[in-house]
Amino acid sequence: MADPDCLFCGIVDGSIPSQTIDSDERTVAFMDINPATWGHALVVLRSHSADLLEIGPEDLNATMLASQRLAGRMKEVLDADGVNLINACGAAAWQTVFHFHIHVVPRYEDDPLKLPWIPEPGDSDEIAQIADKLRGENMQGSSAGEAEEEPV
Amino acid sequence: MADPDCLFCGIVDGSIPSQTIDSDERTVAFMDINPATWGHALVVLRSHSADLLEIGPEDLNATMLASQRLAGRMKEVLDADGVNLINACGAAAWQTVFHFHIHVVPRYEDDPLKLPWIPEPGDSDEIAQIADKLRGENMQGSSAGEAEEEPV
Repeated sequence: MADPDCLFCGIVDGSIPSQTIDSDERTVAFMDINPATWGHALVVLRSHSADLLEIGPEDLNATMLASQRLAGRMKEVLDADGVNLINACGAAAWQTVFHFHIHVVPRYEDDPLKLPWIPEPGDSDEIAQIADKLRGENMQGSSAGEAEEEPV
Repeated sequence: MADPDCLFCGIVDGSIPSQTIDSDERTVAFMDINPATWGHALVVLRSHSADLLEIGPEDLNATMLASQRLAGRMKEVLDADGVNLINACGAAAWQTVFHFHIHVVPRYEDDPLKLPWIPEPGDSDEIAQIADKLRGENMQGSSAGEAEEEPV
């Protein structure tokens, strides 16, 4: 389950020190030592998996419940104005430790973080073409405004 | 369940056009019209809730499973090099539409996105003080390297 060369496996098993703040059967939460903001923490799985695409539904669920719980606690005890949850899957997406984790970043009105992109309208034809690629077979042929079934 | 003034409720019920790409009992996925990268999409809940702190565990789980599925599909059919999942909870955390959603952002080696912060070591005493605030009662008194129970 554990990878002996993995920093986060070492934190989970206690061989590498951390400021651990919460834990449950499947997850451990601890402070990020390179904090983006005052209170930036991580939620990791106890078991080693490289990234989002390697984990099963129960582990994903447990990680997100722990992240949600921590986000609420940040608003409550750190007086955060908001919270970002961020997952980086792959080096091209800023992942640096290859043990699945969620960044839980408390946000404050005056903090220095910048949105990673500048929101600008995309080309609607190009977006439609990408949508065609991404649709599963069950949704092929759907187009704008026609894709919805009734909510069940 | 639906908020008549909510953009994403309108997309879910089909009254506002979108490029919908996936849907299930609890969620709908569609293309972001202000894409951060080629293929940027959103996963939303069918039911209206403002943000992460208002949703229940089944809705959180369904949203994350849909996001994970879409992330895998982006790697497969868009040839993405990585994927970011981002949740913005609160205006201070860049939330602009107050209907809970996850950004699923395919990433490419040469895309222009910037990490929202510059990773630098924090002050370890300050981090320890914040950790004390964030620990639940069950973990009070834990300190670096001593917080872990054995994995169960």
